Amino acid sequence: MTGATRFRAVWDELAGIGRDPVTGGYLRYAWSAAELACREWFVAAATRRGLAVHADGNGNLWADWVPSGVDPAAPAVVTGSHLDSVPHGGGYDGPLGVVSALLAVDELRADGFAPARPITVAAFVEEEGARFGVACLGSRLLTGSVAADWALALVDRDGVTLAEAMRAAGADPTAVGPDPDRLARVGCYVELHIEQGRALVHTGAPVGVASMIWPHGRWRLEFAGEGNHAGTTRMADRRDPMPTCAYTVLAGQAQARRLGGHATVGRIEVAPNATNAVPALVRAWLDARAPDAATLAELVDAITGEAAARAAADGVTVTVVHESDSPVVAFDPALAGRLTAAIGAALPGSGAPPVLPTAAGHDAGILAGRVPTAMIFVRNPTGVSHAPAEAATDADCAVGVRALAAVLADLAAKP
Amino acid sequence: MTGATRFRAVWDELAGIGRDPVTGGYLRYAWSAAELACREWFVAAATRRGLAVHADGNGNLWADWVPSGVDPAAPAVVTGSHLDSVPHGGGYDGPLGVVSALLAVDELRADGFAPARPITVAAFVEEEGARFGVACLGSRLLTGSVAADWALALVDRDGVTLAEAMRAAGADPTAVGPDPDRLARVGCYVELHIEQGRALVHTGAPVGVASMIWPHGRWRLEFAGEGNHAGTTRMADRRDPMPTCAYTVLAGQAQARRLGGHATVGRIEVAPNATNAVPALVRAWLDARAPDAATLAELVDAITGEAAARAAADGVTVTVVHESDSPVVAFDPALAGRLTAAIGAALPGSGAPPVLPTAAGHDAGILAGRVPTAMIFVRNPTGVSHAPAEAATDADCAVGVRALAAVLADLAAKP
Repeated sequence: MTGATRFRAVWDELAGIGRDPVTGGYLRYAWSAAELACREWFVAAATRRGLAVHADGNGNLWADWVPSGVDPAAPAVVTGSHLDSVPHGGGYDGPLGVVSALLAVDELRADGFAPARPITVAAFVEEEGARFGVACLGSRLLTGSVAADWALALVDRDGVTLAEAMRAAGADPTAVGPDPDRLARVGCYVELHIEQGRALVHTGAPVGVASMIWPHGRWRLEFAGEGNHAGTTRMADRRDPMPTCAYTVLAGQAQARRLGGHATVGRIEVAPNATNAVPALVRAWLDARAPDAATLAELVDAITGEAAARAAADGVTVTVVHESDSPVVAFDPALAGRLTAAIGAALPGSGAPPVLPTAAGHDAGILAGRVPTAMIFVRNPTGVSHAPAEAATDADCAVGVRALAAVLADLAAKP
Repeated sequence: MTGATRFRAVWDELAGIGRDPVTGGYLRYAWSAAELACREWFVAAATRRGLAVHADGNGNLWADWVPSGVDPAAPAVVTGSHLDSVPHGGGYDGPLGVVSALLAVDELRADGFAPARPITVAAFVEEEGARFGVACLGSRLLTGSVAADWALALVDRDGVTLAEAMRAAGADPTAVGPDPDRLARVGCYVELHIEQGRALVHTGAPVGVASMIWPHGRWRLEFAGEGNHAGTTRMADRRDPMPTCAYTVLAGQAQARRLGGHATVGRIEVAPNATNAVPALVRAWLDARAPDAATLAELVDAITGEAAARAAADGVTVTVVHESDSPVVAFDPALAGRLTAAIGAALPGSGAPPVLPTAAGHDAGILAGRVPTAMIFVRNPTGVSHAPAEAATDADCAVGVRALAAVLADLAAKP
């Protein structure tokens, strides 16, 4: 049985859960029936492997491998990812890291490896923020970077609070909050993840190691003009916010290319949003990312500056609201170095894996503030993520499992 | 008592009905409680004036003044407008024509005028199409230009059919359909309407006469790209439909100015419409209007041509769906000439009123295919329409009443 075959067998256990038959995408929102089914699968799969599974008060799952003779309170080598998805997301974002972690444990056991410290497989809750709007909510609550009361009052699109959703799922919301005991037992965290762009396709390598997460943020741009009749209002008499917004979208494209960052307008709201009405208001959300904080600031200043200049010409006002901010995350360089060496040794003929930045947030980025953290990426031939076309070959996934197993063996070996 | 005072007294009877206290705009959708309250007001106001009020099978209201000795079956001089509104619309669009018609009847009676043929005040139903999506539905059903079964199955945003809405309002949906008897008794139709742009402001005249309605139409542009992660997808790897749409919005502005037409993108839908996702699909609705059919075709061809060229550069596909089409309406030139002369004579010192085209649809445009039709516009100092800032002074409204009374006297005088 090849690694690819072993991967496919476990992968297929999960593949049908929460999949929309029309789009082929996944709807696995935190604490929904589909995500709870994924969690049940995880508990069963870890238990079958003799791992001791616990849910912390926030709903994060921890499956501990503590061989006899190893201190269960010693800092563990933790690996894993998450099981929830964005709306109609791909199947790999999250679950690939969880499945690969379980298969890496299988490989280590098949090799007769005896860890000198615990190895733990983790599955974090609400990483995408697709239900309650806050990404990495499970790891943020674990580390205390957000308050429990604030989180429990977050509401989904149907007005259900996190507290209500947890109670409906049989979890106890009063247990939500920081967990310093569990955190003290996280010696380091290695997250394997599908690559979400085409960098590995361009380098030709099946796996890579993360160097950093780009700083990024969200800005809401409100373009206010004058609602009017689309038929009778002369072009010269209009104060139409739509062209101002359109100009700003194109400015974002040009400035992102000029500065080597990313600028996206993926969400627009128009009022009154009627075919025969010049809009009174257009709201556009700008998602901007760049390799460093200075470049990000320059990018956003350039875009909002162009928006303001055009707004003045259009007789429109523009208001910019900075909605959220994610500072740069530098992964632990020493840990990244160990990963690179271990993976290079485990994959003879491939050479050392490429080290590359990412512009996506991850639980690993949250934990990086508390413990040494690293990430492994697996090649994505489409480069697509957060959409059904997200992909990885079984062969590349098997290489990911071998790479992760080599890393765990290195980190959990006798010191 | 001045004309402005008389106007204000009747205007205030209606002003509170269906008004949103927050926006100051009106929500008077066809067959809703607010519109029914407007209809009750109309029935009472017409009955107080001794007019015989009938509702036709489509819900259009007709208030007939048939002096003794006049054949009730003779073709009437019909005037009026509608009582329904767009969402949060202004108060004048529609009701001004109905109120002015009743006040013009009052003036003719005060002057002791004896019409030689009936004078009828009409209030058409669902002129805006704000509830069931089809503008001028009442006049279209009257003239048989749309089928009764098709109309009865139209649904509003809550899934309520026209048939259900009529039944809930106590009307009989089986009576919907063409009414050749009533139509045969419409000798000509004169609609007074608030101006919906600033043409009269620019000319300095309180009232004007319509020459034509510009041809116009709606086109749905579907820009399809590839949904993706806003963080991790390099700018060069994207097939983002948002910049293609933005470019098209700006092309619409430039081409409309170049060709002397109007181009508006007032409605946008984005999928999945998430801040951190490159969209998979952007739908934009183009409302285009021009002085003649050839210019309109040139305008739309130029915009969709620029969209297609940009789409190819962006790796995006664009599909254009022509959703609706309103051909040019030329109002009856002889009738317009009689209006101009009658109004010029009735308003000494002002000279003949300006004759101007409009780019908005009206029931008068539907009736123009069957009977001689004309329109009178009253100056709108803001130029705003379909929004709460729509305005007219009481003094200008009183001039409008005098102008309309003069026109009715001319048209209903002994031949």
